[in-house]
Parts: sequence; structure tokens; C-alpha cells
Amino acid sequence: MPTYAPPIDDFLFLLHEVLRVQTRDDIAGFTDLETDLTRPILEGAGDFLTGVWQPLNQVGDEEGCRLENGVVRTPRGFAEAYRAYCEAGWNRLGAAEVHGGAGLPGVISQAVYEMTSSANASLAHYPALTNGACSSLALTGAPWMLQHVVPRMVSGDWCGTMCLTESHCGTDLRLMSTRAVAQADGSYRITGTKIFISGGDHDLTENIIHLVLAKLPDENGRYSDDLATVNLFMVPKVKVDPETGALGVRNGVNVGGLEKKMGLKGSATCVLNFDDAVGYRLGTTKNDAAPGSKSAAMSGMFHMMNHARLGTGVGAIAAAEVAYQNSALYAQERRSGRAVSGADRGEAAADPIIVHPDVRRMLLQQRAFVEGARAAALWVAELLHEEQAGAEPAQRERAAGLGQLLTPVIKAYFSDRGFEAANAAVQIYGGHGYIRENGVEQFVRDARIFQLYEGANGIQALDLVARKLPMAGGRPVLAFLGEVERIADIAAGASTDLAGYAASLRRGGKAIEEAIAWLRRTGPERGETLGAASYDVLNLFGVVLLGALWLRMAVVAERQLAAGEGDPAFLRRKLVLARYWFEREMPTVETLLRRAQSGADGLMALAAEAF
Amino acid sequence: MPTYAPPIDDFLFLLHEVLRVQTRDDIAGFTDLETDLTRPILEGAGDFLTGVWQPLNQVGDEEGCRLENGVVRTPRGFAEAYRAYCEAGWNRLGAAEVHGGAGLPGVISQAVYEMTSSANASLAHYPALTNGACSSLALTGAPWMLQHVVPRMVSGDWCGTMCLTESHCGTDLRLMSTRAVAQADGSYRITGTKIFISGGDHDLTENIIHLVLAKLPDENGRYSDDLATVNLFMVPKVKVDPETGALGVRNGVNVGGLEKKMGLKGSATCVLNFDDAVGYRLGTTKNDAAPGSKSAAMSGMFHMMNHARLGTGVGAIAAAEVAYQNSALYAQERRSGRAVSGADRGEAAADPIIVHPDVRRMLLQQRAFVEGARAAALWVAELLHEEQAGAEPAQRERAAGLGQLLTPVIKAYFSDRGFEAANAAVQIYGGHGYIRENGVEQFVRDARIFQLYEGANGIQALDLVARKLPMAGGRPVLAFLGEVERIADIAAGASTDLAGYAASLRRGGKAIEEAIAWLRRTGPERGETLGAASYDVLNLFGVVLLGALWLRMAVVAERQLAAGEGDPAFLRRKLVLARYWFEREMPTVETLLRRAQSGADGLMALAAEAF
Repeated sequence: MPTYAPPIDDFLFLLHEVLRVQTRDDIAGFTDLETDLTRPILEGAGDFLTGVWQPLNQVGDEEGCRLENGVVRTPRGFAEAYRAYCEAGWNRLGAAEVHGGAGLPGVISQAVYEMTSSANASLAHYPALTNGACSSLALTGAPWMLQHVVPRMVSGDWCGTMCLTESHCGTDLRLMSTRAVAQADGSYRITGTKIFISGGDHDLTENIIHLVLAKLPDENGRYSDDLATVNLFMVPKVKVDPETGALGVRNGVNVGGLEKKMGLKGSATCVLNFDDAVGYRLGTTKNDAAPGSKSAAMSGMFHMMNHARLGTGVGAIAAAEVAYQNSALYAQERRSGRAVSGADRGEAAADPIIVHPDVRRMLLQQRAFVEGARAAALWVAELLHEEQAGAEPAQRERAAGLGQLLTPVIKAYFSDRGFEAANAAVQIYGGHGYIRENGVEQFVRDARIFQLYEGANGIQALDLVARKLPMAGGRPVLAFLGEVERIADIAAGASTDLAGYAASLRRGGKAIEEAIAWLRRTGPERGETLGAASYDVLNLFGVVLLGALWLRMAVVAERQLAAGEGDPAFLRRKLVLARYWFEREMPTVETLLRRAQSGADGLMALAAEAF
Repeated sequence: MPTYAPPIDDFLFLLHEVLRVQTRDDIAGFTDLETDLTRPILEGAGDFLTGVWQPLNQVGDEEGCRLENGVVRTPRGFAEAYRAYCEAGWNRLGAAEVHGGAGLPGVISQAVYEMTSSANASLAHYPALTNGACSSLALTGAPWMLQHVVPRMVSGDWCGTMCLTESHCGTDLRLMSTRAVAQADGSYRITGTKIFISGGDHDLTENIIHLVLAKLPDENGRYSDDLATVNLFMVPKVKVDPETGALGVRNGVNVGGLEKKMGLKGSATCVLNFDDAVGYRLGTTKNDAAPGSKSAAMSGMFHMMNHARLGTGVGAIAAAEVAYQNSALYAQERRSGRAVSGADRGEAAADPIIVHPDVRRMLLQQRAFVEGARAAALWVAELLHEEQAGAEPAQRERAAGLGQLLTPVIKAYFSDRGFEAANAAVQIYGGHGYIRENGVEQFVRDARIFQLYEGANGIQALDLVARKLPMAGGRPVLAFLGEVERIADIAAGASTDLAGYAASLRRGGKAIEEAIAWLRRTGPERGETLGAASYDVLNLFGVVLLGALWLRMAVVAERQLAAGEGDPAFLRRKLVLARYWFEREMPTVETLLRRAQSGADGLMALAAEAF
């Protein structure tokens, strides 16, 4: 059975030595984050998750969820493990204190989320989606919801979902069929069918709060393919009395089906039928919606979606981490062949396969991705907190821009590379990796969804090039390139190795500039050219982003080694991983740039029917 | 349910317009291969496979194989479909006429094999492994086996297997435990446990012929970790009378277990216990074994293994082809968003997703791989036939060398890229791709095994750099580079586009030369440097190999278009696909070269315990 050891030291190194959150007195709440606060939280969560959640991971895959008499049953042990998690308070680290949460910044709750997903990716989805829905509801809900609903989601007594997709429309919300009809009491009746609803039904909690996209009619009662008519509604599984918060009878929400999937089998993916269900229209996250406006309420959905996009990227890190750990252990134990440099272990009949350079290549590829991505994800979590809690307006604006710019990169680049890393674990196991019993192929099947969730990765790439690059007059991308230069400047004064990495990172930044300049120069065919270049540009951002974080980590590691601080073996490992990234990943920059500049003509040359 | 349309026109184009097999009077048997022979075979097999085999593909995945009272039951319909296939004669196209086969060159049987594997990859394994075992037995078996066993494998009445792996040893055969004890009558008794035996037991045929690796003792009856003591034995499931060929009682071969796997669930993967089983030692493929020599009989295994390595590469093409076809159909039908160039279909609410450049990118990536790889695989099938049937000794030697050089490239590069292509199909389907019912995620799970079969891809890379490059004084690699130059020379006289591709292909050839020269210059750390560079060098060969074949195809397509021959739409598509390869795949050459030259130090810097 696979094992999992929470990477506590890596989290602490990133928080306290690289990001140095405890020194950031320009961000409210950060100076409280001393190691005597953070270490017990991370260790406590890690112990709980390895002890209670991780042993259920393979069981969840074997049993999957079942639909019995219209009710979803989660795998054996899931309900108890979920409740124990909530009772220990791990689910409410990031929620506001006013709602019963611990009010900790996202850098902490995100680290804990990564561990939940490494331990049991299917089970991790229920509280993660609840947190996203709850956070959105806290911003957009009416006062009675903040009083009666949000606290019960924070406590974990109730779960939440996000209901967007319909069978004929995923990304293109204009095509949606679900309809809302206003009632005299200010509520709505919702009718329609939603698919791919994670946690759409289950036996973990007595109620589920669905946040549902539906269309409002025009003054003649007609519905159209107009995005401006799409609004977000709160639709509980069991009705809630707005006055008292008391649970009433079942609402008109029924499970129409339970999907059989490639993986993530312990996470219930439901078809939900809304049949004249009572719903409540939500406001906007800015509290500036004109009450009568038809387009008032998409921002709550985008808030939730952005939360989920980052969570998806972190989920990919989590899958890659646990897959890496198991393949590293296997490579240390499995014996085959001899080291080419001469027998490593003369007394045994063969050497462990970790002596082989190509096995090392796969292990380093996994680990350099995982640690670089984790650093980048925590940096973005810092930025998102800074957006809310930064001291200065300009600081908050910069943080917000960087966070929005990097969200599609984290979602798409991380899920692609995380899948690749999980897959490398199977490769290291050889034929044994293909056998279900050994548990590593589950990581591949589970991780595969992250490339599809919350807008398939191609959509993320389009979001990056078509919306995020030109956003706010290009200031966010300039802020990113400025950060690349700043990190390179610091490293240029370090060792020869790091100065070389700094030059390589600068070149990466220049390649991004060249790609953007090239896209700006394109003419009337601009739309297709953007689309044709989008994936390569996104990958360019990804490799440079991780390069920037690896250089930050390498600078700290080198400085600490020189000062005799920290654990030398731990710090030297960071330098080896940074070297891997600059030696073997950064060279892809030129290929990506050249591809991005190859234009759309070749891709669009065939008639659609010729495929 | 997924569909499959056999790519008959593509096969015929490759055979008759690109390879021009019918004109090759320097290879015995090739001038018979006119289209009036090849087309009916390919079409007949295609019709049979789409009608009978393909409808069982998803059933096989859902049901899998079952072990009942020590006997493996294949999924519903498999036994009937296997027998119908044999009765129609599709399994014996490539076997020698003297054994009851049709005696057709491998270019034909390989094309049919690809179609079997697209239609039903699990079912395709049973006859494919039988063919490999049968071909090896035909070369290494005693006369009674040629008389009584081989013809029944050719007819498909009996199946065959390859029994190499043990639980503690895959690639490293020195560690094997299975033992053989000589008997007075010249036979042996075999005892040991083999794992991962594809088709190790099943209900398709009344007998199964296992080819089993086992060790012979020294004169004192002791067994050692000496590769020279490993021999190949024929061990039937049901005993066969050497005199009459009559079936006798069950041999000491029992099913110890049936693996639950990630995919390929209709292919029975067995643990086989050999318990004092009667076996017969096989000779060598060269018929030059000294009868008393302990190291006589590994060559039969290598013959079978090389057959299986090529088959694995072709299996990866097959998976990519059927995955591509379904994702292309989906992209033509699924509507979401609008073409950036303006609405493509004004009357509908949204455009089909094939209007989006990034969806095109994925489709072209799949198809450019599939068609380029198919061309390369058929070229190698031609070479392997030329090795046997070429008119001149020098011609045969060149063909043999090229075939051996390219075998690991076809196995590893094709299985990596085939998996990627199958995975791209899931991406094009979006969330619907993750749902089992839609059938595309099965292609990913099924295709994953090809990267592991017959020596994991890292082993193939080591085979390429450590054995195949220096082989025969480097003549095979020079022959390959000469072929690259020859193709570039022909194209240089064509259009500007093709002249550009020719320059890019030449640069690819030079990059291979530079990588090899760099490896030659490395000093005492040579072993680890080879290992560290191996994977990138293999990928370099892969991308250049497909570039060479794309240029061959483009030259033919351009020439035919100019001459007004052939189907213009079909030929223009080849030019678009060639453009894709040169525009978006060949640029990876520089990255691969740079990585190959980055050496082993970075990979080997960490202590094994530090992972």
C-alpha cells in the first residue's frame, strides 16, 4: 500500500525562509505566523491525515461511491473520516473568525489542503468545494445566510457544491438551460439539470448547499442565450427557514445519476435535477450590484471558480508529491542491474534501481516540479492575502494583478506537469506500477481530472493570453517580469552557479516579452494567432515561474549553507533540485518561444471536415 | 460508444506510393504486393475487425477477465471473436507457407496487427503473442515441434506466451529463480513462478505453448546468478506427444493469480506456477548452438522480444489512431464558444470546438504522430523483411542494422507519444472524457502499458545508446544518418516549403551526430553520462525519424499533386501534417541536444538516501 509523509520541513522552509511571512509587517496577519504557530498546525494536520485519511485512499478507489434509492453512499469510512476532520477543526483554518473559522491566511490553509489531497484526493474534494462555496456565499449572501448557513458550512456540518455544467454546455455558459422564476416572497424557483456536480449528493452531512447558475427571463418571460441573464442562486438540498435557520423538508433537488469515472472514485460526481427547487439569488462579491440588474450575480461564481482553479493546481502538486514519495521508496528498494560506475552494493545480487541515471532523471523531474510548484502556489496564496490585507493600495493592486495573471498558469501548467509526475511514478515501478494493488496507477487516474476541472487547460491558456496579458494596461505581466528581474538581480551577486541560473531566468523573462511583442504585432488574424500561441505561452510562463521560485530557494539555501544555518543536507538538496530545473527544464524556453511564434496558419489550414 | 474506421487509404499510400513495395525487385516477395492483392486484405481485415472485434472493446474493459476454479475466463464474446478471426485466416498472414501461413511480408501483417489493436487492444494481444512465440519456436524448435506444434499455433488452434518476468526480477534476468532439471529422455522438468504472463491462461484455445526462461545447474547441481545459465524452454499447458502430436494430460503449469490492472483488462495477466512441468530446451535462432553449451538458447527469447518491442510500438500507434478518430469526431460535433475569426456557423448557438486553434493543435499533434509513426513502423517492417529477403549481402546487413538500431526507438518513443496522443483525446472531450461510458479514457489506460512492456522505456534508451550506437562499428547509425541526408537531398529540389523542411531535417541529423560525438568525448564517467543522456538521445532519434518519414511523404504528396494524380484533399492533408511536424515538433531538437549534453553530475549529485 502506498505511504505518505507530510512534507512539513518543506512547507516551513518556504513559509519562513523563502517567503519570510513572519517578517511581512506590510500584510495584516502575517507577523503572527511564527513557527511556534505554524509548525504545530502543519504537524497536527499531517499526523491526522496520514493516520485517518490516507489509509482510506485505496479503499475509496476500490469501492467508489454508490447510488442507492436516490441517495449517494460514499466509500466505507469516508463519513467518519470527514467528521473527525471537521471536529478537529482542520476544515475551518481559513474561514473568517466572525463565521467560526480560525481566520488564518491562505498560505496556511493551502498547505493543509495540499496534505489532505495527497492523503486522499477524493475525500479532500468534499471540504475543499465546501470552502469555495462558503467563501463565495459569505461575500454574496443575504444577512440570514451569513447567520444561519455560512457558519454551518464553516463548521463542516453542511457541505457545499458548485453547479455550473450542463450536458451540452461546459465552458460556454451562454447555452445554459437551467431557469429561475421569481416568486412573490423574493425567492426563486429553479428548474434544470446540472451534470458533473462534485459532491452533488453524499452521506457525509445532513444538508448540502448548492450554488447554482441559472437564467432569468426577460420582461416577457422569455429566456435567451445572453450571458447577462445568468445569475447565481443558493439552493439547499434540505430547505432552511430564513427566520430561524431550522431545517425543513427536502427541496426539489434530486440525484439523476452518478458517474463512473476514470479515477477519483470516492468523490461523488452527480447529475442533479432541480425541479421547481426553492433558491435564493445571490449578490456580487463587490456588494455593488444594482438589485434589479439582470447581470448582477456572476461574480460569486467567478470567486468560487478562481478558488477552485488554484485548488486544482494544488491538487496536482499533492498527487505528484505522494506519487514521487512512493516511487522514490521503490527506487531505493527494488534491485535490478548494476550501477555502471561499478557495483554499488557488492554484497547483494543487484543494485537498487536508484543507481541508474535515467531513474534519477525521473525522480528529479518529479521532485523539481513538486517543490517549485509548491513554492509558486504558496507565493500566489501570499499574493491573494496581500490583495485583501496589504497595507498600501498600490501593493494590493499589484498583488491582485499578479494573482489573477498566475491563476490560469497554476491551474493548467501544474495539472499538466503533476499528471506527468504521477505518471513517472508508474514508470519507475515498471510493470508493478500498472497493477492496481500497488496503488501508484491510482494517482495517475486521480490526477488526470485536474487537467479538465474548472475549464480544460486550453481554456486556461486562452484566459492567460486573451484576458490576463492585456488586463489593467499590462501592469500585472510587467509586475511578473519585474519580479523575475528582481530575483535574478539578487542571485547575480551569489555563486557562479546561481549567477548562471540568473542569466537563464532573465532569458526566460525576455522570451515572455518577445512572445508578447510578437503577438502584439500580429494583424487582423490576431484572434486565431492568440489561440494558436496560447498553450506555448502558458507553458513559457510556467517554466519561468518555477525557475523564479527555484532561484529564490537556491539563494536562500546558499546563504544559509554559507552562514552555517539550517540542515545542510536539506539545503544542498534544494541546490541540486534548482540545478535540475535550470539544466533540464529552462532549455525548453527557446522551443516554446519558437512554437508560440509559428502562428495559426498551419493549425487552421485544414477544413474542419478533413480531420 | 467509440467508433473506429480502418485507415486503409493511409496504409495503401504508404505501401504503394511512399515505400513503393511493388517496385522493390531487390527484395524477394515484394513485387507480388500489388494493390489488387493488398487492398482486399486490408479492407477485409478492417471490415471484420470493426464488425466483430471493436464492439467487444468496451465490454472487455467493463467485465475484465475472471479466475474461476483455477481457470481464466475471458470477457463475454472474446472466445468466439478470436475463433472467427482465426477461421478467417487473419492471424496467419505473416507465417511461413510451410507451416500453414500465408507467407506475406511483415509490412502486411503489421498493418493488420495495427487494426486489430485499434479495434480491441486486449483481444489483439492473444494472437500477437502467439505469433511471436510461434515465430521463435519455428526458428529454435526440434523437428517434432515444427511438425506438431508450430502449425497449430499458426492456425490459431493453440496460443503461445512468453514467460520471462519473476516477481523480484524483470529486466535483470541474472536474478531469475526458475530452474530446469535435465531428464534421461532429453526433456527437462521446470520449476518456478513467473509473473505478468499475458495470456498465461484463458478459454480461447485448448492448449497454450509457454516459452519459458529457466536456469540450468552447473555440474554440481548448483544454480548461480550467471546469465550464461539461462535457457529458453517450450512448456505446453497440456502435454503433447512428441511422436504423434496427440494431446495428453495437463502439465504441471497452474495459474497462481490474475492481476487487476489499470487497463487492458480483457488481456489476462497471470501468475504462472511451474511445478515440475515437462519442458523442452530450445536451440538458437542461428541453428549454431553447441548442444552441450549452457548459453545456447537465449536468442529465441531475443527474437520473440524484438518482435514484441515492435508490436508494442505499433500498439501505441493503434491506440493513438482510434483515440484520435474519436476526438476528431467529437471536436466536429461538440459546440462551445465562437470562432475568434467570427461565428463559423451563424445559425447555431455556438460553433463546433474544432474552430478553436488550440483544439486543432491537439488534433494535429495526435495525427502527425500517428501517421509519421505508422510510416516509420512500416519502413522498419520493410527493413526486417529485407534483412531476410534482400538480394545482396550488403543490403541485408544494412537492413538488419537499421532494424536493430530503430527497434528501441519504435518501442519507447512511439509508446510515449502514443500515450500522449490518447491522453489528448480525453482533453478534447473535456469532462466527458473522464467518464468511463464515453470510452476514450479506456484508450489512455490501455495505452499506458506500452511504456512498460518488453523493458520499460528507460531500458530501451539505454539499449539504444550503450548497445545500438556502437554496434557494428557504428555502421547502422551511419546508415540512418545517410538515409536522413538522402531524403533531405530529394526534398531540397522540391518547393520552398519542402526545402525548408529538408534543412530542418539535416539539422536534426547533425544534432544526432553532435550528441554522439559529445558522448564519445566523455571520459571515465562515461557509463553514467550515457545513462544520463540516453532518454534525450532516444527522443532525438524519434523526432528526426518521424521528420524523415514526413519529408518522404511530403515529397510524394507534392509530386502527385503537381502531376494531378491521387486525391488532392488526401494529399494536401499530408502536406499540412508534415508542416505541423516541422513547425512544432522539430524545434525540440535543440532542447533535446542541450539536455543530452548536460551530463550526469546533476542527476547523480544526491545520495540515494536523500530522495
